[in-house]
This record gives sequence, structure tokens and C-alpha cells, in this order.
Amino acid sequence: MPQLEELAGEIRELILTTVAKNGGHLAPSLGTVELTLALYSVFDFRHDKLVWDVGHQAYTHKILTGRRDTFHTLRTLGGITGFPKRAESPFDSFGVGHASTSISAALGILIAEELKHTSNRVIAVIGDGALTGGMAFEALNHAGQLKKKLIVVLNDNEMSIDKNVGALSEYLSKIRLKPQYHRAKREFEDFVKNIPFRDVGEKILLAANSVKTGVTAAVFPGAMFEAFGFNYIGPIDGHDIKGLQEVFSKVGVIDAPVLIHVRTTKGKGYAPAETSPEKFHGVGKFDKATGQVFKRPAPPSYTEIFSQTVIDCAAQNNKIVAITAAMPSGTGLKKFAEKFPRRFFDVGIAEEHAITLAAGMAAGGLRPVVAIYSTFMQRGYDQILHDICLQNLPVLLCLDRGGLVGEDGATHHGVFDLAYLRTIPNMNVLAPKDENELRQMIFAALNKNFPVAIRYPRGAGLGVKVEDKPQEIPWGKAEVVERAQAAEVTICAVGTMVKTCVEAAKLLREKKFSVEVINARFVKPLDAELIKKSARASKLLVTCEEGTLAGGFGSAVAELLVDEKISTPLLRLGIADKFVEQGTRAELLNLCGLTAEKISQRIHERLNDLIFGFLMVTT
Amino acid sequence: MPQLEELAGEIRELILTTVAKNGGHLAPSLGTVELTLALYSVFDFRHDKLVWDVGHQAYTHKILTGRRDTFHTLRTLGGITGFPKRAESPFDSFGVGHASTSISAALGILIAEELKHTSNRVIAVIGDGALTGGMAFEALNHAGQLKKKLIVVLNDNEMSIDKNVGALSEYLSKIRLKPQYHRAKREFEDFVKNIPFRDVGEKILLAANSVKTGVTAAVFPGAMFEAFGFNYIGPIDGHDIKGLQEVFSKVGVIDAPVLIHVRTTKGKGYAPAETSPEKFHGVGKFDKATGQVFKRPAPPSYTEIFSQTVIDCAAQNNKIVAITAAMPSGTGLKKFAEKFPRRFFDVGIAEEHAITLAAGMAAGGLRPVVAIYSTFMQRGYDQILHDICLQNLPVLLCLDRGGLVGEDGATHHGVFDLAYLRTIPNMNVLAPKDENELRQMIFAALNKNFPVAIRYPRGAGLGVKVEDKPQEIPWGKAEVVERAQAAEVTICAVGTMVKTCVEAAKLLREKKFSVEVINARFVKPLDAELIKKSARASKLLVTCEEGTLAGGFGSAVAELLVDEKISTPLLRLGIADKFVEQGTRAELLNLCGLTAEKISQRIHERLNDLIFGFLMVTT
Repeated sequence: MPQLEELAGEIRELILTTVAKNGGHLAPSLGTVELTLALYSVFDFRHDKLVWDVGHQAYTHKILTGRRDTFHTLRTLGGITGFPKRAESPFDSFGVGHASTSISAALGILIAEELKHTSNRVIAVIGDGALTGGMAFEALNHAGQLKKKLIVVLNDNEMSIDKNVGALSEYLSKIRLKPQYHRAKREFEDFVKNIPFRDVGEKILLAANSVKTGVTAAVFPGAMFEAFGFNYIGPIDGHDIKGLQEVFSKVGVIDAPVLIHVRTTKGKGYAPAETSPEKFHGVGKFDKATGQVFKRPAPPSYTEIFSQTVIDCAAQNNKIVAITAAMPSGTGLKKFAEKFPRRFFDVGIAEEHAITLAAGMAAGGLRPVVAIYSTFMQRGYDQILHDICLQNLPVLLCLDRGGLVGEDGATHHGVFDLAYLRTIPNMNVLAPKDENELRQMIFAALNKNFPVAIRYPRGAGLGVKVEDKPQEIPWGKAEVVERAQAAEVTICAVGTMVKTCVEAAKLLREKKFSVEVINARFVKPLDAELIKKSARASKLLVTCEEGTLAGGFGSAVAELLVDEKISTPLLRLGIADKFVEQGTRAELLNLCGLTAEKISQRIHERLNDLIFGFLMVTT
Repeated sequence: MPQLEELAGEIRELILTTVAKNGGHLAPSLGTVELTLALYSVFDFRHDKLVWDVGHQAYTHKILTGRRDTFHTLRTLGGITGFPKRAESPFDSFGVGHASTSISAALGILIAEELKHTSNRVIAVIGDGALTGGMAFEALNHAGQLKKKLIVVLNDNEMSIDKNVGALSEYLSKIRLKPQYHRAKREFEDFVKNIPFRDVGEKILLAANSVKTGVTAAVFPGAMFEAFGFNYIGPIDGHDIKGLQEVFSKVGVIDAPVLIHVRTTKGKGYAPAETSPEKFHGVGKFDKATGQVFKRPAPPSYTEIFSQTVIDCAAQNNKIVAITAAMPSGTGLKKFAEKFPRRFFDVGIAEEHAITLAAGMAAGGLRPVVAIYSTFMQRGYDQILHDICLQNLPVLLCLDRGGLVGEDGATHHGVFDLAYLRTIPNMNVLAPKDENELRQMIFAALNKNFPVAIRYPRGAGLGVKVEDKPQEIPWGKAEVVERAQAAEVTICAVGTMVKTCVEAAKLLREKKFSVEVINARFVKPLDAELIKKSARASKLLVTCEEGTLAGGFGSAVAELLVDEKISTPLLRLGIADKFVEQGTRAELLNLCGLTAEKISQRIHERLNDLIFGFLMVTT
């Protein structure tokens, strides 16, 4: 396959050049170039269907399916998205972004194909990281029973986003030591077929289970998957196109579920990424020649402040433990892990378990801190409700990447958290106006004996002074950031929008309006006293949040006003009830109307309405 | 153990008598009497911790831990709850109700014990049904890696609520055929230890993987669990107290994760329940002597109308498929399964997979209907958002047991659905006023090309005429149920509350108020036109829902009013922001203020306020 190998080189170059310029998921996509080429050279994806798990390894797939020329727009506003997306190409048979969905989706598509009486094959490609997600097992369990001809390719690179964890990962590692296993297996199949089964055969088989788990795993790589009703083939070298083609051709005709275990190297072909695959998992712009990631000089990120603060609290209170779901680097808990290895737990891509584990720890008297990106915390909604809040257990949920995340797009924005968390009884929902307030909130929350969720944005803080010994925020209390005598308008903002609204207030003052700005701090419980007082004292109350308007913070304030019979007009600013696509954070905030300029304009218009509009009102 | 066996008999009798009178989870609890006694006779649960999965098998545990005398209050208002609950007893180390949480919680508790330097043991008891839930695997994967001395008892009765499903269930069934397997295993361990490993040993081991999955499973029962890092012991007869004690005593000293596979019979000791374990899983009052379940003569239930309607639609449209998560009987899909076996899918207790499977089917051109109880649908929040709504796929979610479910209590009420579903873009959220409208809604929804969720209550319909060929409801349109000229108050009710509010309106009319009643039908999209018009025409707008006020239907109406600058006062009636405990549905509706009497009273007070209160208003 010299042409295919040549093509692999060209594709790698295109991916590398593009990601160096735009940022993106480099290491996963470099690891699947040969795998993708082998799949495309054996299957016909005009008919057969390919479902990528998570999808950050699908750049080659995109390049091969009509998006080579537009690939330079990767992850930019209006450009090619970083994940498969149905609206983008008929070859993107299922949209992804969150982990562990591919086997479920592929099985659904396969059932549809069968009911349509086609003989199209359906293939799911799932990483060993995504396999730690429970729903992947739910799907294996179902697919194994249905015995349909589903093909699952396990793309095993021993990595989740950071190093993969869990017993299963250890199990797979042991299998990886036996590259030629499947050949040996075939030989022994013949061997056993030729001995009388009931006596000698069975004794041999029985003997097999007798040794310790580790050895068992090394020798019976398939047992785990075969228990789920899958035929296991592997491990195969995932960078050997010819070898892959051979296997894919053969499994294409098997009329039963098959799992093909493929070993790949994350970051393959680009030395810096092979050496530091976690750094190049999802990466910003970097220098292709050196692998040096460009860092804009910036104040410490919210993530860094979170990281340091939890360490500081844990140093004082040995009941504090920390949990992450496969993201020690991303969430900033890596430092905590180094400092307190026995009090740190990476559970893999397993948000449901992470949350109930924390509830169990809290029931046992510990003070768990669970750090999960806002968008992934959605996976644990029921566990937050049923295991933490119903029992009113003191778990601190820290939702990084709250609000718009930028280039990762619709699957990754953390814009629903305020809305779905505030509907749960006993939950407390906070968002800091800056990185110092994040620190204050964490200190305060870890002294409370009930569930707390704090959400904060991606990226740099505002550069404010971060207190070493932070003042604890008074619980349930908002803060008047900018006071005004006889304010015409009170803006009640939460989280990132506090700063933006202070700027908007400045613009409004230039137009001679009297403006008060409140930092809400709490989405739940609301500081009802302050909000009521300000609403009553103003012509207009405005809420502003980097989150969905449907059910979010402004919705809570609307509830408060109507319940308290306050008729002050309320203008709710936030994200409209639709999914937001990709772009830089600045571009998206602008699109959503969440810039100081646009906010001041909306408020100005509404104030004009109130002052002059009564002439036209007909109600 | 003659005393323990005698005690087992007494406990069985108490459970049977109580459940015959109060209703409850009979079959699961009858199956674990000996298992519980054996656990209590070996471990000291004043220090050791016992975590039950789901918890409907924990009646013996309750009786043994100080609740024998109050057991007759089981599942009644203020009485003993049907599930372990931390507030009820220190022996209830973790509250449960939803499946598959026990291993996570137990691991959390174990970690807490270790950090407190105790040597207490922690034991999770999980059924084979609950093991199909993905988070159980997430927990196994984590526990296996941590290598902590967690004890997991797999209570295998081959049942979920109905017959258990999935490849794993088949695998366990095969293991069950080898009752004395663990002895054979030990013998062979010795055998293999005595042969030189590297050559002969390895060859024997390699041979083992060579036969087909089925045989492998039967012969290597532990392989699956050993792949997860657990030591496997079993299968053990779960009704042999002495045998269980022997095993528990031995594993008590093992310093590593152990899974003990126990075979039990659901409904053990009560012939009707042994014969029909699914009927006696969760059962209403019944005649102990005959096993005859008392049925109040009642109109067909919502579940039955749902069942028939989906069958009728599927007869006309062969793209319609149906999915349940382990509840073919409960959701009413059993009949569908009989009629269309190839178009029916029971995925086990695996709501996440169920939803993404449906999304995959819809992507493949099918029209999936997913029937899951409201409270369990919470498990799929992220999948609804990320896999269905983000791709705007035409999946119909049917949420049975929406609202207050009664005796199952806080873990099972379906009161959050309207709130968490309406925050998701592209989602349509409906609730019918009666069983005929449910039928109309299903017909209409299956003709739409986008995601729809319909929630309806537990129990009997209103007894209205059910149309054979239903009129499709006009999409997004509410219905004026009772019109009034110059209404002082408009009540906008949704779902079950429509009927109640019609009665409340009657009471108000007796007091000479002019009342209009609207059946909202849609929580999303709201019929903004009608609601705005009615609000503008009335002195007071009232919303009423059997769901949480925080973020629910009334919250959506509050958003509408403030966004549309309508200053008509709004009174929001629904369930306050706290968890509701157990009781009959009638008792709980009364406690929540959702009876005609209480509703009319609240409205009357507010109208009085509006009419006379302005004299005192000081804003």
C-alpha cells in the first residue's frame, strides 16, 4: 500500500499544519490516520456507516470525505467543526463530542439498517478511555445479546485525555504485550477442536481460570469481551495499514458482534505529541517545528486558582478529598494528586460513578470535591439529584468550563448548568465574578454541610489580587458592586457577566442613566432581600448570565419577582434557547449579545421603551 | 443454624403480611432473607457498612435493625420507607431507590473508612438486574484498580424487574449451571501451580480461549469480573445460610476486591411470587392466601392507553420501534413486544444507552419511542441533550409516572421532568389532561420530525372516551377548557392539574368569581399567544402543575410574562423546592396544596389581595 502510506503522510502534514494554526485535538487524530485509511479502503461508507466515539480522532475521516479544502477553517466560526456532525456531511452518520456514545448509536443505526433490509455494515470506533464510561458497557451488553453484526473497533492507545485509568485499562495493557496473540489463538483453536471435549478438553479449560487475574488477562485477552457476547480479535497494530485491511476484510463477513482490538500511538508521527500526548490531546496554537505551545501572557486561569485553593484547603482539613473523571490536567487536580496522592481519585470517563462515589465518601464523613467540566457534569444529573441532594450530603461540585467554551462548539458549551442545577432541592449554585471570588467561594463551601456547585469559566482570570487567606463570602448574599442613588436600572449579573455589566453600566452612565450593578454570586439560594429591594427601587431590573435563559438565573429572578408581587419590569439577558456553535469565546459572546456594548444597547432600548413607550402601550 | 432458619421463616411471614396489606416490593425482599441473615451473623454492622443497591430487597435488613415493630407502617405517610434511607436508621448507610449506585457508594464509604484508619468492611449487595446499569461497571473498573478490600455480593436471581436481559445475563445464567464450580476451580489451581508455567502451563491457558463464548462463560465464571480486578467466588446458593456464612467469613479477611456470586430465587418461600416474580416485584395490596392482587375497578390506566396507542401507530408505520429500560410490564410495552418482537428492544437497566440507541435509530430513519419512568429518565439527561436534541432527532420520549408516584416516595417522584426537559433546546415537552389526550399527543408527536417528550401520571385515567382515530392536537396550541367572559382569573393548568383546576374553578364560581381554565398541553413550546391574551384579559393568571416550581411550567410562564412586559400578577402553584416523601398520591397532593379545595383557596386569597390589598401596598 505505498500510495496509502504516502497519503497517510500527507494527511498527517495537513492535520499538523492546521492544528498548529487553529488549535485542536492533535494527538488523537494523529493516532488514527492509518486506521481511518484502512477502514475507508475496505468499507464503502457511502452505504456502510462509521460512528466515531467522542470524535476528536476523526480529522482524517473529515479530510477523506470532502473537507480537505475547507479543513483550514477547522474550529473557526462557520468553519469545519472539530467533531463529526450530521449537518456537516452525510459521512458523519452521528454527531459526537461526549464520550462513550458510539456503540449505542452504532447499534441503533444497525437496527435501522436491518429493518430497512440493507446489508450495510455499521462500525463504531471507541477509545480505551471512552470504554471506561458506563454507557459503553450498557451498549456492549445489549449488542452482545442481540447478536447483530456490529463491528466495534477498540482504539487502544493507553490514554484517555491523560493516562487512562481503571482495572480494565490494566487488563488491556496486559493484552498489548501479546501483539501476535490472535495467530496463536487460531492455532490453539485447531488444537482444542481435535481433542475429545468432554474430558481432556474441559480439564484444560478449567485449568485456565486457575491463575491470578493478571496472567489470565494476558493470556485470554478476549474473555472480558466474550462475556459480553462479542467475538474478540486482537491486538492488531493500528499503524499497519495492510494488517488492518486484512482483518477488516475478514470481519466484514462475520454475522455476529465483533470487537477488534487495535493498538495505536497517540500523537503518532509527531515527536512532541508522541512524547507528551496529554499536552497535545486538545491543544492551542503551537510552533510546528519545536512543539512549543504559544502562551499568551495572561493572569492565572480559574483552573489554576481552583487547583491552588483546593490544595490550600486540603492542607488544613484532612477530610478533603478530590475526584476527577479522566481530567487531572484539565481540571487542575494534577497538583493535588502530587501533593495528596492518597486523597486523589481519577475514576476515568465515568461521571456517574464520580458523583455517587463522592456521595459515598461524604456519607462516610469526608469532604469530597468533584471537578468536572460543566458540559460533562450533565452526565451525572440523576446522581447529583438522587445521591447527593436527596441525602443533603456535603459534596462540592466544581464545574470548570462553565459558559461558552469557544472552539469546541455546541457539544462542549457549559451553558445549561445553572438551569439544571437550580431545579434540584438542597443544591446551592454559585458563580464567581473573578478568580479571587472563586477562592473565597471554595473556602466558604468547604465549611458548609450541604451540597454546593460552583461554576466558573474557561481560561484566564481577570488578574485581580488573589487573597492568600480569603475572606469567606457570606452565604446566600449578593454584593452591590456599583451603587447608585435612585438607580433607574439595576443590573444583576452572575459570574463572568459581572465584569461585562460593569463596563455596560459605564456606557449607560455616559448616556446619563443612573445604574446600579449587583454581583449575584448565588443562583441558588438567591439573595432575595437584596434583589427585591433593588428591583423595587429601580425602573428596570436586568439579569445577565452566560447561560441559557430557559430556566437559568434570570428565570429564577423572574420567579422571585412574580412570587413576590413585584411589578418592576425585568429584562433577562443570556443565551437564547438554541444551541450555540463554535468560534472564539469573544465571537460567540458577541453573537449571543453578551458584550458590554450590546448589553448597554439592549438596556438603553428598554429604558427608552419604559420612559417613552407608555404612550403606545395598549394593554 | 436452626434458630436462623426459624427466624427466616418469621421474617418472611412479617414481610408477606405487611406487603399484602400495604403493597411493596415483595419478591425482591423474599429472595434475600437468608442472604441478609447470613450477612448479619458474620459482619458487625454497627461498624461494618452495608450498601443495598436499589434497596427494594432490604426489608429483612430493616426488620433486623430496630424497625420490626414499626414495619407495619411500611410505605405509609410518615411510616417506614420502602428503601434504605439515612435519616431512618444508622444502619442505612446510604439511601437508595435508583439502580446501580451501590458499588460507587460502597467504594466511597470504604475510602472514608480507610482514611479514618478503621478496618471496617464495606459490602455492596447488587442484583444482576442492577448490574446492567453502566455506572456499576464504572465503579467495578475503579474499585478493581484501587485494589481495596471491597466486598460486592452479586444477588443473581435472573431477574431485573421483568426477566433480566443482556449478554451478561446470559453469561451469568451459564455460570449458574455450575453450582459447585468454585471447588473445582480450587482443585485446578493446585493442579496448575504444580506444572512449569512458561511452557506447558501457558499452552494450556492459551488453549482455553479457543472455544466459543458460551462454553467459555460456563467454564470461566470469574473471567469477566477478574478482568475488572475482582476476585470471583461463586456461584453460591443464596438460601443456604450456613454456606453463605462460610464464604462471608473467609472473604472477610481477604485484602482485595472480592465479588461473591450468590444465586437466589426471587419471591422465595411464597409460591405465587416464585411463580410470577415480575407480578410480585412491586405489588399493590393482595390476598395473602391466594396471591390474588386486589384491583380497584378503574378506568384504563395511562400506561394501558400508551401501550395501545403505540401499537396502533406502529401498525400503520413500520418505522416505529419501541425501547424500554428493563420495564416492559411497567411501561406497558409488553404487548408491543408480543405484537412486534423485531421492533421492540429491552436494553436492561440502562437508560443512557436506551436514549442514545434511540438517537442512533432515528439517525438511521426509524421513529423510536422510548418509554421510561420520569424519575429514571433523569439518568439520561445528557444523552437527551447531546444525542437527541443537539441533533434534533425525532425521538419520542414517554415519561410514565410523571408527578407524585405515592408510596415509593422521594426517590421515585417524577416531579423534575418538566423543569429539566424544558431547558434543552429543540425539545418539545407535553403533558396530557386525560388519557384520550395522551393518545392524541402520541399520534401527533409521531408525525413530527423533532424530539418530543410526553409525561403522564401513574395510575388510572379519568375514564373519558378514548377515540379510536384520535384527532391530532394542533402543535403548540393550548386549549381553553372553560371559557369566561371578562375572567377575573385565568387558571393555566398542565397535565393532571387540569381536572383539579376545573374543580377549583367551580368552587371559585360558587364564590362569584369569573374564572377561565386553560389546558396548557405544552410546557414547551408554550402557547404564548393564548397565554398572553388571557393574561392581559385577566386580573390574575394562575399556573398549576404537578411538578417542581423551581424551573418548571409556571417558571416558563413567568419568563413569558416578564419577557413580554405583561404585568398581570401571576400565582404559581406546584411543588415547592424540596423533596416530597411517601404517602398515597391523594395524601401527597394534599400536602403539596394541589387539591381543588386548596387551589381555590390560594386563588381566592390572592384575588382578595388584588382587590383589597392595594390599600396596603407600600412599594
